[in-house]
Amino acid sequence: MADNGSVEHFLATAIDAAKKAGEIIRKGFYQTKHVEHKGQVDLVTETDKSCEDIVFNHLKQHYPSHKFIGEETTAACGTSELTDDPTWIVDPLDGTTNFVHGFPFVCVSIGLTIGKVPTVGVVYNPIMDELFTGILGKGAFLNGNPIKVSSQTELVKSLLATEVGTKRDKFTVDATTNRINGLLFKVRSLRMSGSCALNLCGIACGRLDLFYELGYGGPWDVAAGVLIVKEAGGIVYDPSGKDFDITSPRVAASNQFLKDAFVEALQLSE
Amino acid sequence: MADNGSVEHFLATAIDAAKKAGEIIRKGFYQTKHVEHKGQVDLVTETDKSCEDIVFNHLKQHYPSHKFIGEETTAACGTSELTDDPTWIVDPLDGTTNFVHGFPFVCVSIGLTIGKVPTVGVVYNPIMDELFTGILGKGAFLNGNPIKVSSQTELVKSLLATEVGTKRDKFTVDATTNRINGLLFKVRSLRMSGSCALNLCGIACGRLDLFYELGYGGPWDVAAGVLIVKEAGGIVYDPSGKDFDITSPRVAASNQFLKDAFVEALQLSE
Repeated sequence: MADNGSVEHFLATAIDAAKKAGEIIRKGFYQTKHVEHKGQVDLVTETDKSCEDIVFNHLKQHYPSHKFIGEETTAACGTSELTDDPTWIVDPLDGTTNFVHGFPFVCVSIGLTIGKVPTVGVVYNPIMDELFTGILGKGAFLNGNPIKVSSQTELVKSLLATEVGTKRDKFTVDATTNRINGLLFKVRSLRMSGSCALNLCGIACGRLDLFYELGYGGPWDVAAGVLIVKEAGGIVYDPSGKDFDITSPRVAASNQFLKDAFVEALQLSE
Repeated sequence: MADNGSVEHFLATAIDAAKKAGEIIRKGFYQTKHVEHKGQVDLVTETDKSCEDIVFNHLKQHYPSHKFIGEETTAACGTSELTDDPTWIVDPLDGTTNFVHGFPFVCVSIGLTIGKVPTVGVVYNPIMDELFTGILGKGAFLNGNPIKVSSQTELVKSLLATEVGTKRDKFTVDATTNRINGLLFKVRSLRMSGSCALNLCGIACGRLDLFYELGYGGPWDVAAGVLIVKEAGGIVYDPSGKDFDITSPRVAASNQFLKDAFVEALQLSE
């Protein structure tokens, strides 16, 4: 058994927590079809909350001195500030719309930062039974097998993923579709899966070549995925090309070869 | 064993053919990452061709008098006319871009029309091991379990799927993104999976509420899925609201409640 303070121990504990939450997600996923719409909303809230409880309780039991940031806690207690302390950043249910509709891209995302640096990441899709993991400096894995980003060098042969978000004001929607319009002339095709964490893992295992998203929920959507991308040999950056900032809801990811052309195609100022 | 001329026999034979092709697809799917890009193109062509051979040979062996329409045959021999004879319409590998990139939405699609009416449908995703089946008048199934379309009645709570196609001229791309722009103000969210046949099956099992696509490859993309949607209680129509025409590359699908509002939101003339 790895030492209680080792990154291997942190990863093993996070995997246990993700698997536990995954069971709850899986159960709810197949239930949503059988409840009325009002009940569906309750089921999401309940699943989200009980997954967060399970994950936080499991982690707190092992690491009582660590800090915790989650979508639910943050919503309840205001913004949580990221410090240099070991901090678990958790999205207990990423892809809630997919969860309600039964579209199989849902996951639990658990990231650990130490000194503000993403150090451990776990993203688990319990429907497709895909477990993405990573430890800083020690590689990224899908169900235990090493993964790496695609070796694509040409934008025109690249598969792009993005999301349309939840804001529906005219300014945001126009900007979203104008950006997609410009990109369609430059990439091979476009996918939208509905889960930011799984899009990052798609980059990490080379299923996707390019991903960007603006206006996602918070650091819990990306904390684990960003590490997994980097450990798979990829890079994560602000869509403007500047450094990625985990406190800002803007992310782009790809391999190193595609970055410059992708940023140019995105034409986004910070 | 069902009678050799019964629809149950047709379905059982089509499932056997789909499973055989699925094995080839699965094998190629996990290989594409390990070949150079030029080799990837060859792998797609080879997989496509050998899957079509396997499916056609299997079906011809059982039903030598039936007719056959497939993407590969049609490309080689010009347009195949659909007659009243029992006709198998086959897409041996739907989602070729996903296949190349390793994105898990790929499938084999096998439909049978009798008197031009879709009568048997099989859509098999060998990566997610999901087998969608239907027989005219006898329901639709996913891995043997009955499925039905969603009961959603409001556009604003609906999950929409579409695709961006392969044409990249300015007229087509502008029309594509303008349509998406208009729809985003009216639906909950948007998914793009990259497989027309699997989008139809997503409607059939209620994962998706709304789907439309313009400019897909041909009848082989929809022949099986259209039957599966109808047998799951859904409806298939031209995006203008007029009758669906299997020879025209335009399709929309949903439950009956959403059709009028969806057609209005699409605002498409035939």
